[in-house]
Amino acid sequence: MKESFEKLQKHLERSAALGVAMGLFYWDGDTLAPKEASEYTAKVLAILSAEQFDIMMGETTRELLAACEQEEKPSEEEEAILRVIHRQFENLEKIPKDDFARFQELTTKAHVVWREAKEKNDYALFAPTLQEILDMSRKFASLRVKEGQAPYDVLLNDCEEGFTMDILDPFFAKMKEEIVPLLRKVQENPVPKLPVHSCPLDKQRAFNCTLATYIGFDFNRGAIGETEHPFSDALHTHDVRIATHYYEDNPESGLFSTIHEAGHSIYEQQINPAYNLTPLGGGGSCALHESQSRFYENMIGRRPSFWKPLYASMQEAMPEAFEKISLEEFLREINRAEASLVRTEADELTYSLHILVRYELEKQLFSGELTVEQLPEAWNAKYKEYLDVVPPTDTEGVLQDVHWSSGSFGYFPSYALGSAIAAQIFACMQKQMPVDQQLEEGNLQPVKDFLREHIHRWGKVKTTRQLLLETTGEDFNPQYYIDYLKEKFGR
Amino acid sequence: MKESFEKLQKHLERSAALGVAMGLFYWDGDTLAPKEASEYTAKVLAILSAEQFDIMMGETTRELLAACEQEEKPSEEEEAILRVIHRQFENLEKIPKDDFARFQELTTKAHVVWREAKEKNDYALFAPTLQEILDMSRKFASLRVKEGQAPYDVLLNDCEEGFTMDILDPFFAKMKEEIVPLLRKVQENPVPKLPVHSCPLDKQRAFNCTLATYIGFDFNRGAIGETEHPFSDALHTHDVRIATHYYEDNPESGLFSTIHEAGHSIYEQQINPAYNLTPLGGGGSCALHESQSRFYENMIGRRPSFWKPLYASMQEAMPEAFEKISLEEFLREINRAEASLVRTEADELTYSLHILVRYELEKQLFSGELTVEQLPEAWNAKYKEYLDVVPPTDTEGVLQDVHWSSGSFGYFPSYALGSAIAAQIFACMQKQMPVDQQLEEGNLQPVKDFLREHIHRWGKVKTTRQLLLETTGEDFNPQYYIDYLKEKFGR
Repeated sequence: MKESFEKLQKHLERSAALGVAMGLFYWDGDTLAPKEASEYTAKVLAILSAEQFDIMMGETTRELLAACEQEEKPSEEEEAILRVIHRQFENLEKIPKDDFARFQELTTKAHVVWREAKEKNDYALFAPTLQEILDMSRKFASLRVKEGQAPYDVLLNDCEEGFTMDILDPFFAKMKEEIVPLLRKVQENPVPKLPVHSCPLDKQRAFNCTLATYIGFDFNRGAIGETEHPFSDALHTHDVRIATHYYEDNPESGLFSTIHEAGHSIYEQQINPAYNLTPLGGGGSCALHESQSRFYENMIGRRPSFWKPLYASMQEAMPEAFEKISLEEFLREINRAEASLVRTEADELTYSLHILVRYELEKQLFSGELTVEQLPEAWNAKYKEYLDVVPPTDTEGVLQDVHWSSGSFGYFPSYALGSAIAAQIFACMQKQMPVDQQLEEGNLQPVKDFLREHIHRWGKVKTTRQLLLETTGEDFNPQYYIDYLKEKFGR
Repeated sequence: MKESFEKLQKHLERSAALGVAMGLFYWDGDTLAPKEASEYTAKVLAILSAEQFDIMMGETTRELLAACEQEEKPSEEEEAILRVIHRQFENLEKIPKDDFARFQELTTKAHVVWREAKEKNDYALFAPTLQEILDMSRKFASLRVKEGQAPYDVLLNDCEEGFTMDILDPFFAKMKEEIVPLLRKVQENPVPKLPVHSCPLDKQRAFNCTLATYIGFDFNRGAIGETEHPFSDALHTHDVRIATHYYEDNPESGLFSTIHEAGHSIYEQQINPAYNLTPLGGGGSCALHESQSRFYENMIGRRPSFWKPLYASMQEAMPEAFEKISLEEFLREINRAEASLVRTEADELTYSLHILVRYELEKQLFSGELTVEQLPEAWNAKYKEYLDVVPPTDTEGVLQDVHWSSGSFGYFPSYALGSAIAAQIFACMQKQMPVDQQLEEGNLQPVKDFLREHIHRWGKVKTTRQLLLETTGEDFNPQYYIDYLKEKFGR
């Protein structure tokens, strides 16, 4: 690496180390930290993030960056470093430092408020905090708009470069046009749900660890914990955490949360460790990350060939739930499509409609068309329109997701993009190797290797589009996803 | 607070926030972090501690400190701030910054090496790392010695101001003179051990949570986890963690680890929260901290009056272990003295002899009289001499404690001092209120209130000796401890 880049790296790893610390607080706050810690911990996080801000946005970074830009023939990695840092600058340079710290403090506290509001089904408890978060997010976005740009587009672009409303509006329009009628058809001839089959939590915990290992999660470099809303959190390639959730009377929920989060985590574990504590560390865009979790959850985790070699051992590990259920019944259950209330519990077919609701609501919140006060009502109306269900409580409605409490506006669309990217990669993978045969042999390694080689190892070196082009030979193409859903659920 | 102190506080809370982050990494590393994380996490910690070093030891701190020292009529708290910072300066100002960071990295890694060596009973695996830690600790201490001072005294003084070898040598000589013969007598008429009584870990977990709550640990401001070597870790007054350890065939071990660590944690939870993120936050000296954990463990936790109202519910919660054991048998068991191998499992009588061994070995390691290679043999010889037992493995011998892997030389004596301070405080408390009667009524609140009022709430505002003088009316006096042991075990 060139000397100027080495200096920049040495300088920026201080910011990266603070990022790792904040990542640990995030994990801990959601899995273990006591209830009353948040007030003081929020102060700590505000100070740490102000430190990080100072390092990232300070004169030294600018000077070192300028020196790096003078270098001739930068390597691919060096160019990527410049690209990533420029995006961070763009993200932060217009935000007043104090506001930035205040926002960190606000979202740390908001998380606790949201949790309590969700527990108590009390939207009014969360509304004032949500209003503050929305106001600050809108303010930040407004400070950053380029000529003629809508504030919401700024946030969309943060998550997935270039995927702003001019791309997403037609993408979701297509979903609405193709998937809502497809769901109506499915709803006319519903596949019956299996009767409730419960399993003690301890047995679920044990089998989910086995399952995570089976698909390729490395416990020597990771851990598993529990939370309300599953997530994964990478400190670095050698410490990646899965937070999952088990329900006694719904063991499938835990299984697919675990597979989904393991997908995120395998991605992080397979990034080149040389990128740890550099701007290239961590996975690529939100959508790319989601594509990997959905790849494991849906493309792999719902396939008959995946369960064939595994099902008997699951029956043995959780007999209370599965000994009376045949493999065929289980497969029918996990591939059943049915409109439901909760996004994280949604099936493949209806998932994108849950996202559609959030996308439209976020657009309206940002344009001012909708107020925070009106949000629950608007939420319920859209669920009625697209999914033909109405949440009986806000807990199962507008309060279900963690995202808004952490100020993550513009993130939801990447779930839908992620599904589409997963479908595109899977179509390509199937052309190159006998995936079903490998899965039937209980061999998950070729899939993991394929993803490492083409996607994971690159960290942030290549953009999502670059990776798609190099892996599949074409740019992002949502048609694979539409075809996949129509083929699977149109039968 | 005066303006100069406010500026100093604003500056130093950056260092305090980094300290909280490192506290979380410490907790996490010992309870959850995956095995292979340590290499990269050590880098992160090295960077964070270098940041902290820069803030603490930088020009800004010195300038602000000088301004504060010009202030007239500082308050008691302001004076304490100056005292605490001067002690930190004294501790750090002569250590080269790079060495300091290297030491952090070394001890983070060493912790993992020690754990593995202990698991495998392989001292040779740990020895080279221990040598490095010893060399660096000795180097740091040598850089800091004042005229004629021994390096080991520097470290003793870090833990407990003023308690250097000239005080500790006679203290331990007295212990050796009075306690070794007392133990010999006890060994002549041993109280028989109860037969093994096992209890499933889940039931132990559940009851230990109940127990921690019973004695006053607040789970709204704390959490409990598991580790090899129990410890407690305070992020701030509203987030204090207990890491305990359960053995299926020795439920008493878990009980007393929990009570001990809860003692540390109640201390931290009762400090004035206004001191969070200031130099006055956190408990006082090591010995004072140990006095609080031993107070709960021994003075309270082994009393008949403590168990009378509690024992039946423990029998119900862990019937496998206790339904066939009467309260009298249980009390005899937990107050039995018997020479054993492992410090953390030691009874009140032999505990100080375990410390005596470590004190003498540390002195010899620092003077060069003893090499790291000779350490296991010397360890075993001293156990033979004082306790009349010989460890069959290094796992139960020289590898049992975590302290040396974290570079904590000079810490062990504070355990013995802590016991002595606990006995002194208890003698005073008994004169002021009917402790046994309160305990029999299941009312732990008066004890907790007494300790908050006299000790806990002060954080680092007052020194240990000041607190002892103000609480008990006299300076440190180890005679209470000797009397207590002779009275209890001499019968």
